Amino acid sequence: MRATFLDAPGEIRVGDTAEPTLEQPTDAIVELSASCICGSDLWSYRGINTHSGEPTRIGHEYCGIVTEVGADVTSIKVGQFVVGGFFTCDNTCPHCRAGFQSVCQHLGFYLGCQAERIRVAHADGTLVATDTHPNAALIPSLLACSDVMGTGWHAAKMASVQPGMTVAVVGDGAVGLCGVLAAAHQGAERIIAMSRHRPRQQLATEFGATEIVEERGDDGVARVLELTDQIGADAVLECVGTAGAMTQALGCVRPGGMVGFVGVPHGVDVPIRTMFKRNVGLRGGMAPVRQYLPELMELVISNVIDPGKVFDLQLPLEEAAEGYRAMDERRAVKVLLKPFAAN
Amino acid sequence: MRATFLDAPGEIRVGDTAEPTLEQPTDAIVELSASCICGSDLWSYRGINTHSGEPTRIGHEYCGIVTEVGADVTSIKVGQFVVGGFFTCDNTCPHCRAGFQSVCQHLGFYLGCQAERIRVAHADGTLVATDTHPNAALIPSLLACSDVMGTGWHAAKMASVQPGMTVAVVGDGAVGLCGVLAAAHQGAERIIAMSRHRPRQQLATEFGATEIVEERGDDGVARVLELTDQIGADAVLECVGTAGAMTQALGCVRPGGMVGFVGVPHGVDVPIRTMFKRNVGLRGGMAPVRQYLPELMELVISNVIDPGKVFDLQLPLEEAAEGYRAMDERRAVKVLLKPFAAN
Repeated sequence: MRATFLDAPGEIRVGDTAEPTLEQPTDAIVELSASCICGSDLWSYRGINTHSGEPTRIGHEYCGIVTEVGADVTSIKVGQFVVGGFFTCDNTCPHCRAGFQSVCQHLGFYLGCQAERIRVAHADGTLVATDTHPNAALIPSLLACSDVMGTGWHAAKMASVQPGMTVAVVGDGAVGLCGVLAAAHQGAERIIAMSRHRPRQQLATEFGATEIVEERGDDGVARVLELTDQIGADAVLECVGTAGAMTQALGCVRPGGMVGFVGVPHGVDVPIRTMFKRNVGLRGGMAPVRQYLPELMELVISNVIDPGKVFDLQLPLEEAAEGYRAMDERRAVKVLLKPFAAN
Repeated sequence: MRATFLDAPGEIRVGDTAEPTLEQPTDAIVELSASCICGSDLWSYRGINTHSGEPTRIGHEYCGIVTEVGADVTSIKVGQFVVGGFFTCDNTCPHCRAGFQSVCQHLGFYLGCQAERIRVAHADGTLVATDTHPNAALIPSLLACSDVMGTGWHAAKMASVQPGMTVAVVGDGAVGLCGVLAAAHQGAERIIAMSRHRPRQQLATEFGATEIVEERGDDGVARVLELTDQIGADAVLECVGTAGAMTQALGCVRPGGMVGFVGVPHGVDVPIRTMFKRNVGLRGGMAPVRQYLPELMELVISNVIDPGKVFDLQLPLEEAAEGYRAMDERRAVKVLLKPFAAN
């Protein structure tokens, strides 16, 4: 079958590889309807994450049809349309039962989901099936649930967004945009999206942003304070992971408020004395997407949310290299890859 | 009137000083039924906080009878018994209305509450009156609401303690002990108090601790994990403020859990990548005691909680120096000072 390989930083190749096979009785094989490129894949593509020197499979978002299940798989059936989060989990351990599947005691990651077919470990725990096969038009939004929508949703949950709140979102990538959508759906009254890119501003507005702040750093903080009578936002979603984004997030939040953070922290120093003085809280991590999948997929299927709009470029899997270039050069927010021409 | 002065680190003196007078129409004068020595007063006493070189008034916890009110004071009346938090606030600004009076836009501090009488700014905002004068036996517990009980309560709130939870409390000072009492009252099912001092262990148990962990550092973390089937506590109250205490708190909490912190951070580095990986949250600050005062005072008056037990030494105000020595040498958990021999 065909799959993407990162041969070296900047070098994406689509090549032949062995078909995945059941390795454990709890595994399933899924033929992918769609996969995509994640902002976090760019860390490897850009050589910021160390490359092993060997061609490496890549990708961790997908949806598709189950073609095979192991002997111990009981709830997932061959022929079902499924979405999985960007990690595998048993969904039965104490951390999973508490809703934090991203810290599952049997947490696992995929070999690479930019491919025709994948093996999914702990299929019963990892996969969520739809009742019937969805309309093709829903595929992008269902795919988005696999990571970016679940991650934006988590940011809003960790920031304790409540109905009526004013929420600021730092970051206008796919996760930040999904954070806007999540905050809107969780009842935020005002949503301040921090973005200086016109097309992203427009999508933020479609997703529910009521105000756009183009300024960054101290100027961005000043603008949010100005918009909130010098009080600050009730909750802030930090969807980047850089020191600058965290400083901006902590500066924008009102005393007593919460910052939900889902960007993997890179070089972030937490100003604990300032947090103490302003009684500002900080909570986040890798999103337990599996917790949110059933709810988010239902919202997509019933046409309440449409996070698939973050995909502004769709390409055949064979053209994955162009997809990476487009995201690297910020010509695309997020690229959907179609393994089969028929899709 | 008489009041304590810190003449230099280690040198507490009770001396004469001018009577407080109304300076603003929103002020009140309160004759104190009781005051006390705070663990944080020891920072100055020990010379860890810089001393100005001049004799300095000290103390910030009190309860007593209103003797005078300014022209603009409307809700507080002369003759009422009142408790105030350890700071003054207007209780009307946006931060106060959101329940974070400790970040009030008109936040203020006292000149020194280890005295016969004090001036209270923003009396209507700061003070909470009882319906009738309380029985003398309730004075210690009402006094405790002024700081340590409100602060322990805040730690539990910031840690999002919920009924049925397993809660660990780091710190066996008056605040930590009140944190145990708060967690118990907020519905924690199991409370693990971390303490190696027998009398404090005993009081923790009286306050609701179900288990005691004597070990500290890595050993303390290992013991809490052992007690919780390697899962960790659902919520942890960090009531010290040192790097060691924070490390212990973050190590004891389960993935997805919250650490509520109320110890002023001293030399604390927040391991943000570990927080991210374990999805552990951190929230806290100077406690908005004013938010909790009405509820806590009612719980004291109706004999539901008795935080006054943290006072294991009562002295006349004139013997304040001995009170400081007793706390400094850890002979006493917390010292109550009585301005009037008649008390």
